[in-house]
Amino acid sequence: MTIYHKRVVLLAGGVGGAKLAYGLQQILPPENLTIIVNTGDDFWHYGLRICPDLDTVMYTLAGMVDRRQGWGIANDTTITLSALDRLGEAVWFRLGDQDLATHMMRTQLWHEGYNLTEITQRLTSVLGLKCRIVPMTDQPVATMIDTIERGELAFQMYFVKHRWQPTFKSLRLDGIENAQITPQIREAVTNADAIIVGPSNPWLSITPIISVPEFRALLTAQNVPRIAITPIIQNKAVKGPTAKIMQELEYEVSARAVRDYYGDLINGFIYDEQDGTTQIDDIKTVALDTYMNNDYKRIQLARNVLRWLDKDWI
Amino acid sequence: MTIYHKRVVLLAGGVGGAKLAYGLQQILPPENLTIIVNTGDDFWHYGLRICPDLDTVMYTLAGMVDRRQGWGIANDTTITLSALDRLGEAVWFRLGDQDLATHMMRTQLWHEGYNLTEITQRLTSVLGLKCRIVPMTDQPVATMIDTIERGELAFQMYFVKHRWQPTFKSLRLDGIENAQITPQIREAVTNADAIIVGPSNPWLSITPIISVPEFRALLTAQNVPRIAITPIIQNKAVKGPTAKIMQELEYEVSARAVRDYYGDLINGFIYDEQDGTTQIDDIKTVALDTYMNNDYKRIQLARNVLRWLDKDWI
Repeated sequence: MTIYHKRVVLLAGGVGGAKLAYGLQQILPPENLTIIVNTGDDFWHYGLRICPDLDTVMYTLAGMVDRRQGWGIANDTTITLSALDRLGEAVWFRLGDQDLATHMMRTQLWHEGYNLTEITQRLTSVLGLKCRIVPMTDQPVATMIDTIERGELAFQMYFVKHRWQPTFKSLRLDGIENAQITPQIREAVTNADAIIVGPSNPWLSITPIISVPEFRALLTAQNVPRIAITPIIQNKAVKGPTAKIMQELEYEVSARAVRDYYGDLINGFIYDEQDGTTQIDDIKTVALDTYMNNDYKRIQLARNVLRWLDKDWI
Repeated sequence: MTIYHKRVVLLAGGVGGAKLAYGLQQILPPENLTIIVNTGDDFWHYGLRICPDLDTVMYTLAGMVDRRQGWGIANDTTITLSALDRLGEAVWFRLGDQDLATHMMRTQLWHEGYNLTEITQRLTSVLGLKCRIVPMTDQPVATMIDTIERGELAFQMYFVKHRWQPTFKSLRLDGIENAQITPQIREAVTNADAIIVGPSNPWLSITPIISVPEFRALLTAQNVPRIAITPIIQNKAVKGPTAKIMQELEYEVSARAVRDYYGDLINGFIYDEQDGTTQIDDIKTVALDTYMNNDYKRIQLARNVLRWLDKDWI
């Protein structure tokens, strides 16, 4: 089996996971790639159902993402947002005008009774995407962040309105007890040749996904490579609050601490080449250039990950 | 009492009623003007609560309406609508980008539990309006049109999607049995010095308002001028499907037929000066220039209506 025919499942949050997904999409046959996306950030806003991570992955793979910020649609305008501002609304969540169309179409389908997997399939299809982008579950789950300064905050209040400045104490996943593994996810995981945990925030992006009841057990039951890619390079987060949260939780800010956090979920870990590998690791490790600051490096990392899987897990 | 101190209640649909409301607003102290607006056209669209007639009246009085078409916001763009079109949606209902902000704010407040009267009060307040614009009821009522060619259609399907081309058979007001007169309307009608039925479509715009249970009885109990202004001039509708619907219902297309349709609801009627008055009328009538094709003529008609009320009903 060449690396180009592996069936890969990627667990992803927003920006970091989406970049790796983009790289994998350029290499794998589309039907071989399934991206399981965090939906703990999803929320209702002005009557619309907004799924920030699903949108970031979709827009990135469709080549329409705003590359400077990593999310939203390139060259989008904010005419509606400015009008809301004139109506006296506090416009702390940026909604682009083209982006709004996605939320409106999703909400329309939601009210028509489609589940989020079906809605996402419809959206990815009209955007011309061939790989499968699936929500971690069809049941609504809301990530709630308990903070020292402001008590418990809904995710977008913590992340966007307060720009992840309040001190992170713990995370609660409202509704997670009713979340179910979707048939599409069960099928993809069961048939996967490799499972990749993207370089997303382990607490905010990956924890909701692996907290869907029985999902962690489903993953660890697969006798295939289950690897994570570090979101920490040289004791810093590539983007966002990962390092800050690790400090606040009194973890060492290191790739090794992330690898430990995942525990037996993974049997392989990819460090950044700036950190090298830790020889005492009891699981397979490798050091690669994980810093995806342009398209070429996304594809390069995806290819190197697949080659490593091919070499070490024949 | 001068005409400038009358307390006036205006019944209005969209464009025609809004033009007269604009005229009255320029003359009356704002606290003396209450506009009761049809909400039978209201509907859910992409998860948003849209109230076309309330919006048209609000935008007109705020001076922000698109004057060419009579509804929507002047110089509005349709970036979101174009994006919906690219997503494969049938974009038969025009949604401007600035206009969307109104629907989003209304929907947010709706989900927070405010009633439509409160929401409209909030919107008119942020738009700087001082008069009262109130929905005919806070309960959802949906105007359904039975047609020969396409059976029963939801109002916007009939009016916008099919451009009122299907033959009108009858009208059903879904939910009207649960509609209640609001305290704000009861107070305004009880204290009114005059009640004016605007030159709106009697079937599509005025019938829903006067079908709210007990509202017709509340109006006719008021011993004050209750006058209607013709929407028909020289056997033609000034705008929209009034004449077409009258033909389809086998009425004569005339101002007199409209006056007969209102029956004892009114004790006065204003014909257009092109038609003159019908001497055999058993109620007070007058002929005025009712064609409001510019701001001056809106104010002139409003002033002439109030002067007539002052002269004939001392």
